[in-house]
Amino acid sequence: MKNAIYPTREEDYPEWYQQVIKAADLAEHSPVRGAMVIKPWGFSIWENMQKQLDKMFKELDVQNAYFPLFIPLSFLEKEAKHVEGFATECAVVTHHRLQKNKDGSLVPASKLDEPLIVRPTSEMIIGYHFSKWIQSYRDLPLKINQWANVVRWEMRTRLFLRTSEILWQEGHTAHATDKEADEQAIAILKLYETFVREYLAIPLLIGEKSESEKFPGAEKTYTMEAMMQDKKALQMGTSHFLGQNFAKSCDIQFQDEEGDKKYAWTTSWGVTTRLIGALIMSHSDDDGLVLPPKIAAVQIVILPIMHKEESKDAVLSFCKTLQSELEGLFYHDKKLKVILDDRNMRGGEKNWSWVKKGVPIRLEIGPKDIEESSVMVMKRNTPVKEKQKQTMQAFKETVCDQLDEIQKDLYEKANAQMEQHLVPIEDKEEFYRFFASKNEKKSFCNGFAISYFSLNPELEKLIKEELNVTVRCIPFDFKEDKGECIFTKKPNSPKVIFAKAY
Amino acid sequence: MKNAIYPTREEDYPEWYQQVIKAADLAEHSPVRGAMVIKPWGFSIWENMQKQLDKMFKELDVQNAYFPLFIPLSFLEKEAKHVEGFATECAVVTHHRLQKNKDGSLVPASKLDEPLIVRPTSEMIIGYHFSKWIQSYRDLPLKINQWANVVRWEMRTRLFLRTSEILWQEGHTAHATDKEADEQAIAILKLYETFVREYLAIPLLIGEKSESEKFPGAEKTYTMEAMMQDKKALQMGTSHFLGQNFAKSCDIQFQDEEGDKKYAWTTSWGVTTRLIGALIMSHSDDDGLVLPPKIAAVQIVILPIMHKEESKDAVLSFCKTLQSELEGLFYHDKKLKVILDDRNMRGGEKNWSWVKKGVPIRLEIGPKDIEESSVMVMKRNTPVKEKQKQTMQAFKETVCDQLDEIQKDLYEKANAQMEQHLVPIEDKEEFYRFFASKNEKKSFCNGFAISYFSLNPELEKLIKEELNVTVRCIPFDFKEDKGECIFTKKPNSPKVIFAKAY
Repeated sequence: MKNAIYPTREEDYPEWYQQVIKAADLAEHSPVRGAMVIKPWGFSIWENMQKQLDKMFKELDVQNAYFPLFIPLSFLEKEAKHVEGFATECAVVTHHRLQKNKDGSLVPASKLDEPLIVRPTSEMIIGYHFSKWIQSYRDLPLKINQWANVVRWEMRTRLFLRTSEILWQEGHTAHATDKEADEQAIAILKLYETFVREYLAIPLLIGEKSESEKFPGAEKTYTMEAMMQDKKALQMGTSHFLGQNFAKSCDIQFQDEEGDKKYAWTTSWGVTTRLIGALIMSHSDDDGLVLPPKIAAVQIVILPIMHKEESKDAVLSFCKTLQSELEGLFYHDKKLKVILDDRNMRGGEKNWSWVKKGVPIRLEIGPKDIEESSVMVMKRNTPVKEKQKQTMQAFKETVCDQLDEIQKDLYEKANAQMEQHLVPIEDKEEFYRFFASKNEKKSFCNGFAISYFSLNPELEKLIKEELNVTVRCIPFDFKEDKGECIFTKKPNSPKVIFAKAY
Repeated sequence: MKNAIYPTREEDYPEWYQQVIKAADLAEHSPVRGAMVIKPWGFSIWENMQKQLDKMFKELDVQNAYFPLFIPLSFLEKEAKHVEGFATECAVVTHHRLQKNKDGSLVPASKLDEPLIVRPTSEMIIGYHFSKWIQSYRDLPLKINQWANVVRWEMRTRLFLRTSEILWQEGHTAHATDKEADEQAIAILKLYETFVREYLAIPLLIGEKSESEKFPGAEKTYTMEAMMQDKKALQMGTSHFLGQNFAKSCDIQFQDEEGDKKYAWTTSWGVTTRLIGALIMSHSDDDGLVLPPKIAAVQIVILPIMHKEESKDAVLSFCKTLQSELEGLFYHDKKLKVILDDRNMRGGEKNWSWVKKGVPIRLEIGPKDIEESSVMVMKRNTPVKEKQKQTMQAFKETVCDQLDEIQKDLYEKANAQMEQHLVPIEDKEEFYRFFASKNEKKSFCNGFAISYFSLNPELEKLIKEELNVTVRCIPFDFKEDKGECIFTKKPNSPKVIFAKAY
């Protein structure tokens, strides 16, 4: 049997990824260097992510606001470490008008006194406004989020995973104490974790970044890391405890209950449309996209069998009734979304188009099914040709449970794969063999390593140079588990996760 | 009695506007030239507008997508008329990195081969992608919307009304026939009209723009115009029938049913955060913001009377129960949002803070009210000191009706004022007197003029220069009503609306 996607994952994983995106019509490259267009099917996934996350943020008393796209150059200069991280890859606006040449061509005109940076992240501009909003301890905590676009000039780009322009949310909070700010950063990481596990059905490792992998200007960066099917790591989102660093460079001070002036403690955190890339790489197969029901824009597609002219109208009318019945059902707080595909095209082609788009359940209904009051159910997490006959009544009564089962199955499959390839490695030679040896599958890695590591930055740099392997995180789960560094033999070293990463 | 806002509308309308925004904590200027920060209370209004409009777009089969922020200079050059309109006021990205000088300062580095424009509107980049998506008549109609930020360099800016960076939605559609495209443009204008009348409670004049006021590159621009309290016009949103102009410059062609290649017919349409400015200027009074219940983020605030220590806990607990009861009620498809303000501050100050924020209903509840099972109801559309005693049961049963009454009252008040100042003017001298004479209220105008006008562009220009008055629209309502131009005596001239505008 031929698969819908060529090449398959085993044949060429990166190219398979591009082809899945194309076949599901999720996104495409734009003529603007490094930028992408998110097409309706792809954007519907982002909209669902936004809705759910936004609800969760608001439950933590985070309020939405909006800050300017442009940041004056002088703002960026205020935070030295931040500059190192962001100044070298950003879009610079230098003029504010165009002038027409005699030949009709346009050239930049009206140079700005001070160049403007298109925000790569907004700590410095939001910090400026926080410094005006915060006067007293009564103004704290302040918890703000914005849904926005940011720009980081990227040379090698890949749809959803690495683009110059990124859609994201960035949360920024300010607190009266270091403890409260640090707890906030962790609370947000846990919110992200819940969202990713429960809605995207992706298992995670959560923990702290090493010194060299931290956000520029942060005291601590918390991260969630997932294993893609090719056993590479994908950073899914980060939450930063910024200490008083940004409060000092932006002058965010408050008067405490005793009347003393103090700098606030701040956090920032974000997730991006990269999560769509993660979703694609975690669950899709050689027939295309596989969407977890809880994040899919459409849970069910109805495929009416209409090749007999005399029964066509009856089948269509039956399917329309079914569609509106199903759309009356609630699935996790939202109404089920059901498409009735009555396009005039071959049944096989039509079926495959929805397979490639990843819709969780496909229903086939013909004259015979109506007669027998049954329905043919096809689930995206089972082989394409597999059909299950269910009575109409049983299907309607259990459809939400069946969707939940698909959701659970996807999570468990991904989790089993992660656990299988999370390998404890106890000496240096084994470590080098694990990461240097080729996997039988082209462009696959062998997994993640769990090892005691002294966190020596020079050594970390060397490992990165030699193996293209980085410390993904120091997992919370192993916090108390210390041992002898596998490279330096230094005792009492923490357990960390090493991997090749996107 | 002193008002909460100084100066009052009559004393200084533009300054009153700024003070209402400040008192309600809606937005503030940013150090970035011409840009603004939308603060949480202001952003909550935008979020509600987005939710409702997005739902209405989807009911018309419009799908959301996302296109790049940057547009290559050469794309803009393709549409001559479009260039005239937008090239002179846009932000130009010329470099993609910053370099550190010896003194630590940063300077733009790595010049781009081709400058990029920060989108002032996206016809040219979306047109490029439409040309790839559309091959056959089967791909039509194509209806896409994006929620995005755009930048137009503005020298004189005013919060919400005119800023360099604007949040908006821009819809773009392509059709097989001119008729269908024109109908789409009109259907969207009517959608906007419904939204503005029913949710923002603002009366409108809708119609077509004159030749000189059209969108650069459009065949026809449809517009909705509202009258603010100072009798100036505010353009609330526009919908453009673009003919084949953009299809030709972007090469959007399709094969029709006969196999012939044809250019598509396109539309574009948008509304912006300017609608928040319109909302402020339409309903607010000398005590601050007045929000129509259907667009307010919070419909009701509960103010517990807590000055007696012995009854404080009982009052608070009673109010909490009431809050959750009210929040269980649906008001126009959404649950009521109720705030319980238990801050420890003086009652009067607390009450005024919600008056200034424009919450439709304030409830005062003290020990006596609990005893009598009654509640003191204060409505934002009645004088601040006016309290109405209602039994708790009656209030709960009729709260949604009472909110609807406030909504209706706001619309009717605004509508009465518009009708009163919509003045038929039948000769040139009267016209000049109407617009040149000062109103007794500082910075107020005398209203809109309805006159027969030949639409002569030179004359239009002269009127603009001499009186700062423009043709706001040729209203649909008077389409058949023709007469002698009040300036040129040309017969069979249409009836148009003239006004000074924001």
